[in-house]
Amino acid sequence: MKRYRHEKDILQVLLEVSRKVSSSLDIDQVTRAILQQAKSFLATDYSTLFILDDRSRQLIPIGALGFKSNQLENLTILLGWEKINAELVKTGRAMVVNETRSDFPLGAFIAVPLIKKNKVIGSLIVCNSKKAGTRFTDADKHLLYTLSNQVAVALLNAQLYKNLKDQYVRTVASLAAAIDARDPYTHGHSERVSAYAVAISTALSCTVRFIENIKLAGLLHDVGKIGIRDNVLSKDGALNDDELKKIREHPVIGTRIVHEVISTPLIIRGIREHHERFDGKGYPHGLKGKKISLEGKIIAIADTYDSLTTDRPYRRGVSAKEAVMEIVHCAGTQFDPVIVHAFERSVSRMPDVWRFV
Amino acid sequence: MKRYRHEKDILQVLLEVSRKVSSSLDIDQVTRAILQQAKSFLATDYSTLFILDDRSRQLIPIGALGFKSNQLENLTILLGWEKINAELVKTGRAMVVNETRSDFPLGAFIAVPLIKKNKVIGSLIVCNSKKAGTRFTDADKHLLYTLSNQVAVALLNAQLYKNLKDQYVRTVASLAAAIDARDPYTHGHSERVSAYAVAISTALSCTVRFIENIKLAGLLHDVGKIGIRDNVLSKDGALNDDELKKIREHPVIGTRIVHEVISTPLIIRGIREHHERFDGKGYPHGLKGKKISLEGKIIAIADTYDSLTTDRPYRRGVSAKEAVMEIVHCAGTQFDPVIVHAFERSVSRMPDVWRFV
Repeated sequence: MKRYRHEKDILQVLLEVSRKVSSSLDIDQVTRAILQQAKSFLATDYSTLFILDDRSRQLIPIGALGFKSNQLENLTILLGWEKINAELVKTGRAMVVNETRSDFPLGAFIAVPLIKKNKVIGSLIVCNSKKAGTRFTDADKHLLYTLSNQVAVALLNAQLYKNLKDQYVRTVASLAAAIDARDPYTHGHSERVSAYAVAISTALSCTVRFIENIKLAGLLHDVGKIGIRDNVLSKDGALNDDELKKIREHPVIGTRIVHEVISTPLIIRGIREHHERFDGKGYPHGLKGKKISLEGKIIAIADTYDSLTTDRPYRRGVSAKEAVMEIVHCAGTQFDPVIVHAFERSVSRMPDVWRFV
Repeated sequence: MKRYRHEKDILQVLLEVSRKVSSSLDIDQVTRAILQQAKSFLATDYSTLFILDDRSRQLIPIGALGFKSNQLENLTILLGWEKINAELVKTGRAMVVNETRSDFPLGAFIAVPLIKKNKVIGSLIVCNSKKAGTRFTDADKHLLYTLSNQVAVALLNAQLYKNLKDQYVRTVASLAAAIDARDPYTHGHSERVSAYAVAISTALSCTVRFIENIKLAGLLHDVGKIGIRDNVLSKDGALNDDELKKIREHPVIGTRIVHEVISTPLIIRGIREHHERFDGKGYPHGLKGKKISLEGKIIAIADTYDSLTTDRPYRRGVSAKEAVMEIVHCAGTQFDPVIVHAFERSVSRMPDVWRFV
């Protein structure tokens, strides 16, 4: 176990930790940083971070370090942390336990509450395996308490940021759903296309940022249809040339709608290019092959898959299997073969996303 | 000027400052906290904080303390900070100046860059009036540099949060605008109603949080119309009973659309109650007087004002003056007299908001 001899050293480390932990608003990054700092600060084997869940009013685990399994839900039940957390919430005071407790299979531990405005808003528990045989002191407890409460605010900020982001995505989703709802045949379409695009991007090992953005692009890809009148949008028969032209404007109209407000090029391109074809015969710009963005290619397949598998005024939807075959058949003409390949992998590997099929 | 004798004291203060500054994601609060801490840390007369503007790539002032005027734009020109900031960006190094410079009318100053990943992302300048006659030391400069860069990350986080919030509002606005665009007579309606509701709320001295939410509620108040088909929405003649019933469902449909995704009661009530009347003769619930929420009452007036002043299929819009008279005439029947009074004040006091008139 590390020991800091001078208070000055501790303060210096705390400042450093505080800066490191605060340097992100990504809740996963902040969580990991706090756990790593807590673990290395006291040189312990395990550390787990809990946060107050607004709905259940319970402390729930949001990250753990040192365990073999990272299945947080299992960890809580197995290790009986609920009791310890309940004690923390009740007393609001940090605790250090060196003797073995029947409700806690690991060795010595320190548990500290994260406090904001006199309320317990989370907790941090560090512990050692039994065989380590170490004892924690009151000084250790005090140290962990100071550390935790220096960084608690970074955790809360990251949570706030995540909440805003979630609400944003949900708002866009609900507006997109409202647009789909005008036409009984496209009910839930944007949401499904978004989920499919995420699945394909995951199969392509895209970055988290890419996936976040393609989720939004999927939700918004048909937003340009908002400006098209019902009699064209839900027409029962074949569309005439004028109507076809009107419909084919929707990627451009959609781009115009979001362009001023969303500066993310990925989202813009995803909307504009989701009807382009690999062979250059698509619209609105007739882009070909490499000229089409990755996001445009992904949404094109997700969009087609959903169109094929749902009923339309003029035909019934086909089965998932038939739709996949149809898309594979169009690899090299309508679609980029590389993305089609990822699409196939995503179908077999992520069955829960395909819940609408 | 305060002097800290022990490094330990300084570290302790830095930790405290760091926690205080980080405890908010509101950019104004964070700015104020940084300025206050910088000013009291070195007991200086003036402090100004600058941040890198993404568009212009210039350091622009976002807050100042100690000056008589808080007109930040004027301050920059008057005091010639641009040159100092240009030097900071060029060298990336803090500077302390005790002699009088021709381009800087105040006395001694310290200017430190805020740095992230080797890039200058802002600056902090503290200075004393000439008559104070104090000299700054290299130790002071070092102290301010440490302080600034400990809190720079809090400033960046707050900026990130603000950007996300702005993008959120702009996205909702663009979708609302797209909904309005289906009907040529309601073009820009939601945006104007939102601006009017903000003006009325300001006249009522509502909180910043209230105003932020009513802005969104105004943008979303007609979102329920998205589910109403064109032939009803844009009908040229009088509506029959069925069509009237359909139209009158829009506050409830709108509530349903956003209810699952937006948990803010203010926004929900604003949408649901914007067609309620003070005398209980409104829809959908026939609420009366105090039973109607403040937000519902505000949006009702903003909505009516915009309807009156714009052309409709069946009549031409009236002048702003006539519309105000009409609304005042309905105080006590259709509208809450208190809100009508605030509305009148907002018309005369905030002419720039009424730009559409």
